[in-house]
Amino acid sequence: MNIQQLLTFAQQNFDRFLEELNAFIAIESVSSDPERSHDIRKAADWLSNKLNSLGLDHVAIFDTPLHPIVFAEKIFDKSAPTILIYGHYDVQPESPVELWNTPPFDATVVGTRLVARGSTDMKGQIIAGLAAVEALLFGKEELPFNLKFIYEGEEEIGSPSIRDFLEEHKELLAADTVLNLDAGMINADTPSITYALRGLAYFELLVKGPAQDLHSGVFGGVVDNPAIVLSQLIAGMKDDQRRITLPGFYEDVRSLSDKEREELARVPQTADTYLSQTGVPHLAGEQGYTCIEQNTARPTLDVHGLLSGFTGEGAKTVIPAWALAKLSMRLVPDQDPVKVADQLKQYLSENAPPTVIWDVKTFTGGYPAFCDPDQPASKALQDAFELTWGKRPVLKREGASIPIVTEMKEILGIDSVLSGFALPEDNMHAPNETLNLEVWRKGILTIIHFFDLYSKQMADA
Amino acid sequence: MNIQQLLTFAQQNFDRFLEELNAFIAIESVSSDPERSHDIRKAADWLSNKLNSLGLDHVAIFDTPLHPIVFAEKIFDKSAPTILIYGHYDVQPESPVELWNTPPFDATVVGTRLVARGSTDMKGQIIAGLAAVEALLFGKEELPFNLKFIYEGEEEIGSPSIRDFLEEHKELLAADTVLNLDAGMINADTPSITYALRGLAYFELLVKGPAQDLHSGVFGGVVDNPAIVLSQLIAGMKDDQRRITLPGFYEDVRSLSDKEREELARVPQTADTYLSQTGVPHLAGEQGYTCIEQNTARPTLDVHGLLSGFTGEGAKTVIPAWALAKLSMRLVPDQDPVKVADQLKQYLSENAPPTVIWDVKTFTGGYPAFCDPDQPASKALQDAFELTWGKRPVLKREGASIPIVTEMKEILGIDSVLSGFALPEDNMHAPNETLNLEVWRKGILTIIHFFDLYSKQMADA
Repeated sequence: MNIQQLLTFAQQNFDRFLEELNAFIAIESVSSDPERSHDIRKAADWLSNKLNSLGLDHVAIFDTPLHPIVFAEKIFDKSAPTILIYGHYDVQPESPVELWNTPPFDATVVGTRLVARGSTDMKGQIIAGLAAVEALLFGKEELPFNLKFIYEGEEEIGSPSIRDFLEEHKELLAADTVLNLDAGMINADTPSITYALRGLAYFELLVKGPAQDLHSGVFGGVVDNPAIVLSQLIAGMKDDQRRITLPGFYEDVRSLSDKEREELARVPQTADTYLSQTGVPHLAGEQGYTCIEQNTARPTLDVHGLLSGFTGEGAKTVIPAWALAKLSMRLVPDQDPVKVADQLKQYLSENAPPTVIWDVKTFTGGYPAFCDPDQPASKALQDAFELTWGKRPVLKREGASIPIVTEMKEILGIDSVLSGFALPEDNMHAPNETLNLEVWRKGILTIIHFFDLYSKQMADA
Repeated sequence: MNIQQLLTFAQQNFDRFLEELNAFIAIESVSSDPERSHDIRKAADWLSNKLNSLGLDHVAIFDTPLHPIVFAEKIFDKSAPTILIYGHYDVQPESPVELWNTPPFDATVVGTRLVARGSTDMKGQIIAGLAAVEALLFGKEELPFNLKFIYEGEEEIGSPSIRDFLEEHKELLAADTVLNLDAGMINADTPSITYALRGLAYFELLVKGPAQDLHSGVFGGVVDNPAIVLSQLIAGMKDDQRRITLPGFYEDVRSLSDKEREELARVPQTADTYLSQTGVPHLAGEQGYTCIEQNTARPTLDVHGLLSGFTGEGAKTVIPAWALAKLSMRLVPDQDPVKVADQLKQYLSENAPPTVIWDVKTFTGGYPAFCDPDQPASKALQDAFELTWGKRPVLKREGASIPIVTEMKEILGIDSVLSGFALPEDNMHAPNETLNLEVWRKGILTIIHFFDLYSKQMADA
């Protein structure tokens, strides 16, 4: 069958896909609620039945220390490329339930939107992907690529089991690309693909001075104050252009190409947007970069917490024995959190005065991720979006980390194509979560185009 | 009678003075304990009876919103100079009582020491002063100076009532010198007179950035971090010589004369003493000054507390909405805490970036005090010490504030002569407080000499 026939098949089945989504949503798979672990299991079962009904092979539910992981595959030719579709079937809690206008797990169509917990994050995205797979497999007996599927039930609680699972099933999960539809669109008219994520290096810095708090009258003047020394050390970590001064910090930073900067300029996130979102009196960032570049493509250093001495009501005149800061650096490709820890320690060795003792505690960080936007699957999705939406998706970077993308790269060596059809106004994680059904249907067609274009690329190769 | 007869009178009555002290100590005048307000009253009554028994005039107990103030006087000639003797009859709580080797309010002689709460701080000092007055009045019917007495019952809880009392009784308390024996000796061989105290300007500095805590991945890079800005502002308050950079901060600082520096060098407080007392790895202070000068004769700036963002266990990646510091400056003569508040605000105006909003809350501070060591009463006490101890007392400055000295100066315009016979090893405010009885007896003789020498000075004048 040709592409038009596949699209027609999908269009004829939209109502059934929606019914399936409603059934999936009705299972209250809230991963943070131990009382609902049977619902989590029910969702995993529902999903494995669905995968079986699509004629996929080796459908399996893997137990983990917490919530199960669902797997399936369709191997046509072991030597052909493989796309691994990732998703999570768990959802955020519905509380505060009194703020919902409709029952959170009873999906309700309101206008052009489906209102329900998990509608957009991400049961709707899972069903969109599977609808496209169904159309694809309905229309073609043989594909020039293989498909694998992995769905976890712990994404909303930080995916505590996924790392070990990836480590233990490298062979099973081997693939060339991950299709991850857990990201979203810029707005209903503007699709996007996120090709880079920032990593994280997180530390606790402790500066110790006197053996115990001292009376600032009795001893003030002869000892350095740990809270002041900590302030000096923090202040010295940035120069007056707001660049980070840790030795060698920028050495591994991949510079932005002109093409990337042009693409990032398409992101409709202006200084005014940032101002109204943050409520700061004035924006500030590294000189020589636009807001969106500062926010997504450049590394940062932030202090998350300060604690020292007396912080209660009123006045107490102690020289505190110690001062503590929590701080982290957001890292961009190709920075390495382990090297950054060394850079921080080198900075402290070179700059801390001998009047204090310092100690750095390193917390689990994460590598930045760069998923080549020129890889075949990304190209195919870009073209697919253009066919469906009439414009090329914005290729963007993300300021935050998405651990699964990093882990897929780090553990399995696979680049992700990170995209999706969720919208900023979808109330993700909030009451009255919605799915824009028009966008969702266009999304299904987009994934069908993606498979088709990817097939052609593979067939041509 | 001549001086020798006065001294002999005292020596013959030492045992009775000690009995009186024991009776005074037995009254549990703990000012912080509301359950013991009747004991406080009892101590005030005891003291007023004692003052009456000495033949003093206008003995009165003044009620205050909290604990009473005891007053007395002996006016020989309204045009003659007047010495106002200050003391406090309240004591610290005895807790933790299980650490005492003897009952805290049952004064016990152990070797050459009297062990009891209040023995040295400062019932022993009060009785020493009154013993000397008794000897003086026993021996002389007329004096070339007048005596006034004021004893408060709230010193150990910060003297909340004394300011208003001084304001309301300026006439009654008018005097030329305050004799305040609430300070102490450097060691049993080395008397001292404290002629200058540091003042205090205390502030809370709040730096506000975003409207609420922000996700450091989602927004990191485009906004200034309030905890970092606070650190920068604090770091900028000192230069690399550890001098304070607030505009005009040193303008009113009285420089140390060569004579003062020589005297301060006699204080047996070395770098090693400070090191072992504080437990810091290395000392640090303003360049160009000795430790004792840095600690007592130079102004300082200390941060007492820092609070911002996330300070719990583990890692949380917020850009905090605000960051707070408690800080103060210890001031030396002739600095003014009100001017210093303006200097801080000017510094912040000139240095805070427009990316944050800052606010300074000013707490009650205190003026520094300078009590001329060349005033007649100070000279008389210096000579008296030389007669009794065989060496001149060390003229020193104190790093901490003693509000009553400042208030006597500020409200009544009277310089204090601040001295006393307490020793560093006397366990003031701690269990097993002691009074060195040998030093105490020498102290009584010293005060008799002081009165005698002051009489001669006044008679000569």
